[in-house]
Amino acid sequence: MRLAELSRRSGVSTATIKYYLREGLLPSGRQINTTTAEYGDEHLRRLRLVRAMIQVGGLPVATVREVLGHVDDESLGRTIRMGAALWALPQVPEPDAQDEYVQAAHREVDQLLEELGWTNAQALVTISPAYRSLVVAVAAFRRLGYDWTSERMVAYAELMHRAAALDLDFVETHSSEAEKAEVAVIGAVLAEPMLQALRRLAQEEESARRYGFE
Amino acid sequence: MRLAELSRRSGVSTATIKYYLREGLLPSGRQINTTTAEYGDEHLRRLRLVRAMIQVGGLPVATVREVLGHVDDESLGRTIRMGAALWALPQVPEPDAQDEYVQAAHREVDQLLEELGWTNAQALVTISPAYRSLVVAVAAFRRLGYDWTSERMVAYAELMHRAAALDLDFVETHSSEAEKAEVAVIGAVLAEPMLQALRRLAQEEESARRYGFE
Repeated sequence: MRLAELSRRSGVSTATIKYYLREGLLPSGRQINTTTAEYGDEHLRRLRLVRAMIQVGGLPVATVREVLGHVDDESLGRTIRMGAALWALPQVPEPDAQDEYVQAAHREVDQLLEELGWTNAQALVTISPAYRSLVVAVAAFRRLGYDWTSERMVAYAELMHRAAALDLDFVETHSSEAEKAEVAVIGAVLAEPMLQALRRLAQEEESARRYGFE
Repeated sequence: MRLAELSRRSGVSTATIKYYLREGLLPSGRQINTTTAEYGDEHLRRLRLVRAMIQVGGLPVATVREVLGHVDDESLGRTIRMGAALWALPQVPEPDAQDEYVQAAHREVDQLLEELGWTNAQALVTISPAYRSLVVAVAAFRRLGYDWTSERMVAYAELMHRAAALDLDFVETHSSEAEKAEVAVIGAVLAEPMLQALRRLAQEEESARRYGFE
């Protein structure tokens, strides 16, 4: 298809498409002559991903470029390729290793992973931003004096593990490795707000069931 | 306790405590004489909540004041009191009712609630920000052409319902209605990043189990 059709089918203006091409967020089309290029379904798919990250996720262009670099890196295995694409998304900053709550949170998270039997996650702790995010969240919780028991943490973790299995089932409905990596990114940008909304709605439902509206 | 001890035990500087007092985020202490006031455990607890919203949640003072107004409103029933406190947190903007994806997302979410049997949530649809967030998230997903089936949505919703039951179990470990409303707010500000981190860690674990690291 030509640029005009790519614009029509994607709902992205030709000016924006040209901007994405210049910024390297969209690969060039196949040049037919000096003024015309031909685009394919892979361009439509890539535009969809770029829009999800920029318009819905609010990510800066540099971050989008970095994420796409990992999505497109065919030298990576599936776990690392999906992980690397997610890891390029904005992450919580490195916590202060001298802080006593951070140190205690490290121990607590390590013990949680042990109890859960998440041995693969244990192997990734030094590089995984998800591990770091969890340490930061647990430290904030403890610093404020809240006292979730480890049973409660395990219960939440097991629910999230079941959610993660659903996530990967969805990833597997896509055939190519590139699409799988793309869908993992989409899942982070779009599915997280959806799950959060579902949880809040479920809280309202459950609260009304338990206590009514009085 | 005096101001100095309140500062020491809360880890909040006396200057910041005075600022919170002036801004009405913290109730006045019991005046002992013209220069000295006495503070109690309720002040410690309130400081903890204010810090969670400002330092961890990054909320503006005006929002914190609004949330606290609902937390302190004894005229509200438990469901509405917890809901009102959450509803004052930043929400997604009202979606464009003319947009065809938004209209389709409304129908899809209504059908989901029907299938789930969330009849109480159905009664709140016109006022619940969680319902609106879900419509916005589903519309974004569909606009980008992603095709989650309704079975998949139901499966996620049921997991989130189990998470919500855990949330309310935790709320119920606190005795007073004021503390219950506070803990519901804390759950939104602090527990959401924790669940998100757990989900991403679970994705890494599950991906490594299914595909290894190659």
